[in-house]
Amino acid sequence: MRLSEIGEFGLIERIRGKFAVKGAEVLAAIGDDCAAIRMPSGDATLLVTTDMLVEEVHFRRDLIKWRQLGFKSMAVNLSDVAAMGGRPKWAFISMALTDDMAVEDIDDFYEGAMVLGAKHGVDILGGDTSRSPRGAVISISIIGFAEDGLFVKRSGASPGESLYVAGTLGDSAAGLDILRGRLKADGLQGERVAAGEKSRSKLIEKHLCPEPRLDEGNLLARLGLATSMIDISDGLSSDIAHICRESGVGCEVRLEWVPLSEELKFMSPYLPKRALEYGVSGGEDYELLFTVKKENAEKLKEAWRRLKTPLSEIGVIKDASFGLRLASEAGWTSVLKPTGHDHFAKVEAFDSS
Amino acid sequence: MRLSEIGEFGLIERIRGKFAVKGAEVLAAIGDDCAAIRMPSGDATLLVTTDMLVEEVHFRRDLIKWRQLGFKSMAVNLSDVAAMGGRPKWAFISMALTDDMAVEDIDDFYEGAMVLGAKHGVDILGGDTSRSPRGAVISISIIGFAEDGLFVKRSGASPGESLYVAGTLGDSAAGLDILRGRLKADGLQGERVAAGEKSRSKLIEKHLCPEPRLDEGNLLARLGLATSMIDISDGLSSDIAHICRESGVGCEVRLEWVPLSEELKFMSPYLPKRALEYGVSGGEDYELLFTVKKENAEKLKEAWRRLKTPLSEIGVIKDASFGLRLASEAGWTSVLKPTGHDHFAKVEAFDSS
Repeated sequence: MRLSEIGEFGLIERIRGKFAVKGAEVLAAIGDDCAAIRMPSGDATLLVTTDMLVEEVHFRRDLIKWRQLGFKSMAVNLSDVAAMGGRPKWAFISMALTDDMAVEDIDDFYEGAMVLGAKHGVDILGGDTSRSPRGAVISISIIGFAEDGLFVKRSGASPGESLYVAGTLGDSAAGLDILRGRLKADGLQGERVAAGEKSRSKLIEKHLCPEPRLDEGNLLARLGLATSMIDISDGLSSDIAHICRESGVGCEVRLEWVPLSEELKFMSPYLPKRALEYGVSGGEDYELLFTVKKENAEKLKEAWRRLKTPLSEIGVIKDASFGLRLASEAGWTSVLKPTGHDHFAKVEAFDSS
Repeated sequence: MRLSEIGEFGLIERIRGKFAVKGAEVLAAIGDDCAAIRMPSGDATLLVTTDMLVEEVHFRRDLIKWRQLGFKSMAVNLSDVAAMGGRPKWAFISMALTDDMAVEDIDDFYEGAMVLGAKHGVDILGGDTSRSPRGAVISISIIGFAEDGLFVKRSGASPGESLYVAGTLGDSAAGLDILRGRLKADGLQGERVAAGEKSRSKLIEKHLCPEPRLDEGNLLARLGLATSMIDISDGLSSDIAHICRESGVGCEVRLEWVPLSEELKFMSPYLPKRALEYGVSGGEDYELLFTVKKENAEKLKEAWRRLKTPLSEIGVIKDASFGLRLASEAGWTSVLKPTGHDHFAKVEAFDSS
């Protein structure tokens, strides 16, 4: 059986079922954003995550500068710590590099990684370097802590709870389409040119240098507000499916409530997909998706005041039998298909019928 | 400046100098086999290591089975924990895979990794999977512990101490030459055929499935016998250079004392290099190289009795001004050049003049 037949998530499930072994000290492992490990003395809970970025799969050298790639490689890893509600502490960076690379490019990569790392108190403690015959591969591992042992898994959602998103969705995927030259810029004329330029930059920035939502995730964990949480890396539709599968629930997402930025709405007429399409299945948002009990809605709103990131309720958790559905105020619903990134399997595109 | 101009070790030094930041809790970092981190409560010391294996750089699919590759990928990482004297506990395995791969191959890989992991009490807690457009890349991170906070760095060697090796050297590199078809087997005739077959298998086995010396390293750390230690991955000459640089010392290696297996000595007449050449600059031995104070020689011998791995004194630590030299009983000495693996720089071959 080929990898392309079972897909990335099929592969992960297979590995998880056959090979993952864990002792009582392991509180979370494969199937969550980080592994969570209670230290033998019981006074600290480690969070560990690792993410790989492969040239021509996750990035193209002609579309991202090395400094930005360093920033982003760190960001996607820190985002996993954010999704558990933890605080990152140490980074290990491994790189397989082609030998035509300039040493200055590697400096730039590390500088980009360190800019973001330093902002969140992360030190680089090690890694590995290797030659790569073709294409660069970056693998970062992060070790952090769950403060006071508090962290949020994907598996805690229950029917009746509300589904929330921090930030806006779809900007990154739209930014990537712009970088790929898919913008029909000739549609932007007159006084719309300047606004278009600003929106364009914002969407590209979101794609190249996403900010991991560490403060947001940490707040949700420390206050015990989120019952489940994940970062949106594969796309909203895929990542909701992860929460639902791990929690054994279904959900209904309200079409009108999916948070879209003004920039995305402004630019989408000139892009190949509709704004909502970017928002639902775009991927690489690195925003947080989480569930909160209805009775905690006010407490959440109150706690969120200290943060600048927009907070949006986008749906409600249902029984597993309900499945995953996208509903509109006009009354129709459609089955929400996980249409985000799967490295090996090809899945059908966004279905809004 | 190109990567090939500064080489792998030049790159590591550059990263270490420019980007590595560490707090007081970090007891070892870049420049050692593992990072060592004292937990906030002070009651546990984590050891963390990460190693990447790149297709066509570290392995060729036609020369190693996936099960063996899983074993070896785990072994090279566990060997770094052995070199600190610690005990491994958790593994994180990331793989970038070509989509023509069979799922069964990945099963085999994990089975190989688990066979060795289980033997040493290591559980797989996570990782990442990605598509690779060309060639597989494996990145493993291991977290372990320094028992009672005891571990051995590369930097503790002092002049006058003895240099030791656990196991025999050069077998792996000779095994690789055999796998590459560089054996002039027609030289093996008559009653030497059977012995040749056995030796051949042993050398290949050492290359494909090296056993990390965890018990040996742990013994040396717990008894406080090793003042410095490293695992021989790049080759004896390179790894001695690492110890000498980190410790600020020189050393003299005695030619006749470099431990060579009977199998290597038997096969080397039919191989492109002399046995000693494999032993000194072969690489991928995953044996331990360490220094011990002269007054502890008897204590070491006594403690080593419980182990089956051969123990060999191979030289003596000198002042830094002495440099690195290879000496023979016949009285001549030569400068020992680090001639092991460097992924980016090409260095001159073994010099025995």
